[in-house]
Amino acid sequence: MPPKADLILTNAILLTMNDRMEIFSPGALAIRGDSILAAGPEAEVRAACQAGQAVDCGGKVLMPGLIDAHTHVPMTLLRGLADDLRLDVWLMGYMMPVEREFVSPDFVRLGTQLACAELIRSGVTAFADMYYFEEDVARATAEAGMRAVCSQTVLKFPAPDAASFEDSLAAARAFIEKWKGHPLIVPSVAPHAPYTCTPEILKATAQLAMEFDIPLHTHLSETALEVENMRTETGMPVIPYIKKQGLLEAKLLAAHCVHVDVGEMHTLQHYRAGVAHNPSSNLKLSSGFAPVAKMLEMGLNVGIGTDGPASNNDLDMFEEARLASLVAKATTGDPTVVPAGQALAMATRLGARALHIGDLAGSLEPGKRADLILVDLRTLHNSPHFRRDPANIYAQIVYAGKASDVTDVMVNGKWLMTKRELLTLDESALAVAAQDYARRIDTFLMAREQSVLSKLIALGGSSEQESFEVQVKVRIQDPQPALDGLSSPQIEIIRQRHYSQHDTYFLFDDPAQGRLRYREDEFLDDEGRIASVRSRLTLVGQAREGAFEHEVLLSRSRFLAPALQTLRFYREYFRPKAERELQKDRRRWLVRFRETEFFVNLDRVEHPDLGHYLEIKSATWSRMDAERKACQAIELLAVLGCSQDNTVLQDYIDL
Amino acid sequence: MPPKADLILTNAILLTMNDRMEIFSPGALAIRGDSILAAGPEAEVRAACQAGQAVDCGGKVLMPGLIDAHTHVPMTLLRGLADDLRLDVWLMGYMMPVEREFVSPDFVRLGTQLACAELIRSGVTAFADMYYFEEDVARATAEAGMRAVCSQTVLKFPAPDAASFEDSLAAARAFIEKWKGHPLIVPSVAPHAPYTCTPEILKATAQLAMEFDIPLHTHLSETALEVENMRTETGMPVIPYIKKQGLLEAKLLAAHCVHVDVGEMHTLQHYRAGVAHNPSSNLKLSSGFAPVAKMLEMGLNVGIGTDGPASNNDLDMFEEARLASLVAKATTGDPTVVPAGQALAMATRLGARALHIGDLAGSLEPGKRADLILVDLRTLHNSPHFRRDPANIYAQIVYAGKASDVTDVMVNGKWLMTKRELLTLDESALAVAAQDYARRIDTFLMAREQSVLSKLIALGGSSEQESFEVQVKVRIQDPQPALDGLSSPQIEIIRQRHYSQHDTYFLFDDPAQGRLRYREDEFLDDEGRIASVRSRLTLVGQAREGAFEHEVLLSRSRFLAPALQTLRFYREYFRPKAERELQKDRRRWLVRFRETEFFVNLDRVEHPDLGHYLEIKSATWSRMDAERKACQAIELLAVLGCSQDNTVLQDYIDL
Repeated sequence: MPPKADLILTNAILLTMNDRMEIFSPGALAIRGDSILAAGPEAEVRAACQAGQAVDCGGKVLMPGLIDAHTHVPMTLLRGLADDLRLDVWLMGYMMPVEREFVSPDFVRLGTQLACAELIRSGVTAFADMYYFEEDVARATAEAGMRAVCSQTVLKFPAPDAASFEDSLAAARAFIEKWKGHPLIVPSVAPHAPYTCTPEILKATAQLAMEFDIPLHTHLSETALEVENMRTETGMPVIPYIKKQGLLEAKLLAAHCVHVDVGEMHTLQHYRAGVAHNPSSNLKLSSGFAPVAKMLEMGLNVGIGTDGPASNNDLDMFEEARLASLVAKATTGDPTVVPAGQALAMATRLGARALHIGDLAGSLEPGKRADLILVDLRTLHNSPHFRRDPANIYAQIVYAGKASDVTDVMVNGKWLMTKRELLTLDESALAVAAQDYARRIDTFLMAREQSVLSKLIALGGSSEQESFEVQVKVRIQDPQPALDGLSSPQIEIIRQRHYSQHDTYFLFDDPAQGRLRYREDEFLDDEGRIASVRSRLTLVGQAREGAFEHEVLLSRSRFLAPALQTLRFYREYFRPKAERELQKDRRRWLVRFRETEFFVNLDRVEHPDLGHYLEIKSATWSRMDAERKACQAIELLAVLGCSQDNTVLQDYIDL
Repeated sequence: MPPKADLILTNAILLTMNDRMEIFSPGALAIRGDSILAAGPEAEVRAACQAGQAVDCGGKVLMPGLIDAHTHVPMTLLRGLADDLRLDVWLMGYMMPVEREFVSPDFVRLGTQLACAELIRSGVTAFADMYYFEEDVARATAEAGMRAVCSQTVLKFPAPDAASFEDSLAAARAFIEKWKGHPLIVPSVAPHAPYTCTPEILKATAQLAMEFDIPLHTHLSETALEVENMRTETGMPVIPYIKKQGLLEAKLLAAHCVHVDVGEMHTLQHYRAGVAHNPSSNLKLSSGFAPVAKMLEMGLNVGIGTDGPASNNDLDMFEEARLASLVAKATTGDPTVVPAGQALAMATRLGARALHIGDLAGSLEPGKRADLILVDLRTLHNSPHFRRDPANIYAQIVYAGKASDVTDVMVNGKWLMTKRELLTLDESALAVAAQDYARRIDTFLMAREQSVLSKLIALGGSSEQESFEVQVKVRIQDPQPALDGLSSPQIEIIRQRHYSQHDTYFLFDDPAQGRLRYREDEFLDDEGRIASVRSRLTLVGQAREGAFEHEVLLSRSRFLAPALQTLRFYREYFRPKAERELQKDRRRWLVRFRETEFFVNLDRVEHPDLGHYLEIKSATWSRMDAERKACQAIELLAVLGCSQDNTVLQDYIDL
């Protein structure tokens, strides 16, 4: 007696996406419980199984669900928050400050639900996620009925869900122990990237993955800069480095692999690592072009991912599969590479293998789980259709198909969408809740963006320095008299330095915002060679100075921060209205004069060419002290042979 | 009294897409007849106009309709016919044979209607077309209510609608005279491309365009090969060449411009030429990456086109706008270039200017025609949304928006779609009619693809040669005795040649298909240098040979064609199961022996290394003649000092 099927799907164009790329039309698929019992020509399947319920597919395409090989699903809640920015500005200027403020179990749960709704509508049945509070991602995903590899992030910085790497590693272990063996969720660990993890973290996560035989999910070789830094710091490219840390011993899922050479590809292939190619993300962030055609030719399991919806900005695997094909053609100069059928195999069978769930999903074959979709190709934008060549149907799906052509979705034998109606999620409620988050994030960022100061603080690391100073600056023709004066017995030199200072001032529409100065100090040794470099960011608040007699000034408050990013970063982040550059050679002495310490600066302003200046400064704490020091400063000026007639009140950039 | 509006659209997020990129929310737009009366903040527009009918947009985005700056709309009927092929195989192997067979006024009309339905659904209100029977394109477009620049193709080859260039030029003139001044259609002329037109054609079309002050639409610098050939043939790149032919004096719309240098861009800019960038098409055919960011920086009017749906494979301008941005970022390495707002401007205002209809369309401003769309951004795939930055809304549309988000479309003051219902076209009837064409094309191509012979004939230029031949071939150790024998007084040498022959045989699954041989003959001069090269394609039919006594053969029928394409072309077009290569050095004599002419071939088969052979051949026409010549051939063999014992029956590739 033939086996009993719970459900038979009939009258379909059945794309098995198996290794032989078999197509059956009319084809049928029999399901028992969570798994596929039979798949093949309709007559054969009907004969081989006792019919349970039968569903007529009405001539639609029946194929494996798509597999999103790399994403960060909760980031749906940050979709369209900040675009057209460079990776560092986007990440450190927007994503991380917002994540520090908002990411919580609730945020993650809602973001996951919103993503699942969109993914199901786009024909995705499984995905590989990497985020914080991953257990909440897993729970929301399982409730929505989807399959996922859920990877708990571990990194060297404090994260929204862990104060330290040890905490997140412990959380990852607990998560894996609890969820291992779940019918839908494969728990996993995600050392974020080689450059955000220490070798110790990489080794520990690799050991954890091996201990539980679960996938290890990470970002590898996404940008040229990453590879360059890795070579500088370790003398090797990224893949040999992570091999050294043991990552290749685990079931590796490597996202991006944009900048890998042939030797590295061979290594990845040898260790059966999965690769997740993310075309939209790589284009949008201009990370580069992954050598996809080459990796496929070498037999690597290359899946396709959307990456997070904050950098894509959606979860449309139809679009990604199309781009995987188009971009490979464009970059190799060969329009025959990555044909439609291969692109669709990447989005299904190869993706499942990349996630190390190839035994469960990726093709419609007996024994695999019933993860499948129905696609209606008789839409206007896909009319007419040709059937001369088996490749025609793959081309229809990949080159003209849309997410909205998906009508029905099943995961693990259970319908999640029928006739375009979601069965496990309430879309309108999710949209309302998501919009509430967006409003709060908008408010948070708008408050921050109201002032240069709050944007500076949002970057972290800045500190206020309320510097009350006595200051006098005079223009001089020749520095020699001042240099001679410094040898005077009235002056004791405590220390001296020599540096070349490059200042870039950012100016804003509203002068009340103050001015932001990016200064690079090059300390020069006795022979004028650069000994070391220091970059600082200073927000010079609105002048609160009060002029004393003799035009000696009491100075103002400042915010200081080490400039950890590039000038370009700050330019794109602060978007100044205008910029002014200033370059000067400064010799600076700390001297004692009449029992008081003063700084004496001898400046040559070289760009623009403003000549020589002598500046005398001293910190102060009271009006009386300031007045006393002002008098002494004037005396010191005289000792240094300078006339008070040439006093300059303005900053150099205002001259 | 304020002017009277026929219609006011209220409660919209109004994206004007004007030069200042003004956004009004809530915004309103007043329409009178076919034109915009007012656009701005809702309160102002309400105050400025007397309300006619009012339509509440329900908070949707109200923006100018998208402009598809380059397409071939009737090719919807060839969508997905042949993909993942190189341009030449796709064009000469599939598109042109099918077009020769099927393109007619009826085909063009149906294809245009199908395209209009898809374009309206995707929020496109105007497009620039280039095809055959352009008057039928124009009529179908006007009936569908859309705006278009309709360009009648002119080229140096016979076209489906014209036997000669003079005919198509006359047809273009008649078409332009008849349609000039139409409220929706701008008639235009399209010299197909510099490499498919003579200088005479280019000059004549430029003059025609200037005479009627209408746009001239052409393909320029699409591939590197085109530019290389142009440099070889004329000593200049493409833009200077077309300038010389007068094209820049006309209102030029230049599709592609992938391979243009900065000087050429300056020239295009100086002459106010419009550029149509086609990202999907350029990627899919691996034509290269157009320098879009640079062209925009230089102030060129760069619009975005879908190109024809046979190479895209759809007409989705949301996808194209997104790709225009993403590809520019990826190729410049700068993710801040072509931000979303600029990409959307390309798809609207700049596109209208590129089509030279900037006075009519491209932005929502008083005086322009009412060509507009409503877009619903509150979909699941576009949730949530942020409003911190005006750029947020452009990012939503460009990076996460879909064609299916368009709900309403108006052109020239008339609704073409409301609430996603098309008002001027019957989609299901179009789909049925289109499928009927597809079935006929499938049948035509399947018949053709059943045999190698019919595929060869479809390329054109081949001729049958029923060659009955007496032939004897013997293996020899040393060619010297034969060379000595040729000096025998019994033999008169009529002429002789020496060549190096490179043969590639294509073998097919079914031996009845015969074998296709691609031969490159290098004629060698007396010093062994290559004097000239000839490529030929020969389909050697199934053997119909009958062996005579002494193992002399009567040979078979062949199809011969000059090999105008590359070996790679034929490989991709015929898709052989296997290939075999053969290289030989051949010395050939035409001799007279016993009053009969024979060819004597002295071959050294070098690759694979098979040694020396002597072959004697003579054409024949009857069995009796064949038997006589067979005896003579055996005698000749003896005179040339060869033993009949070493007779070889097989072709070299079967040895």
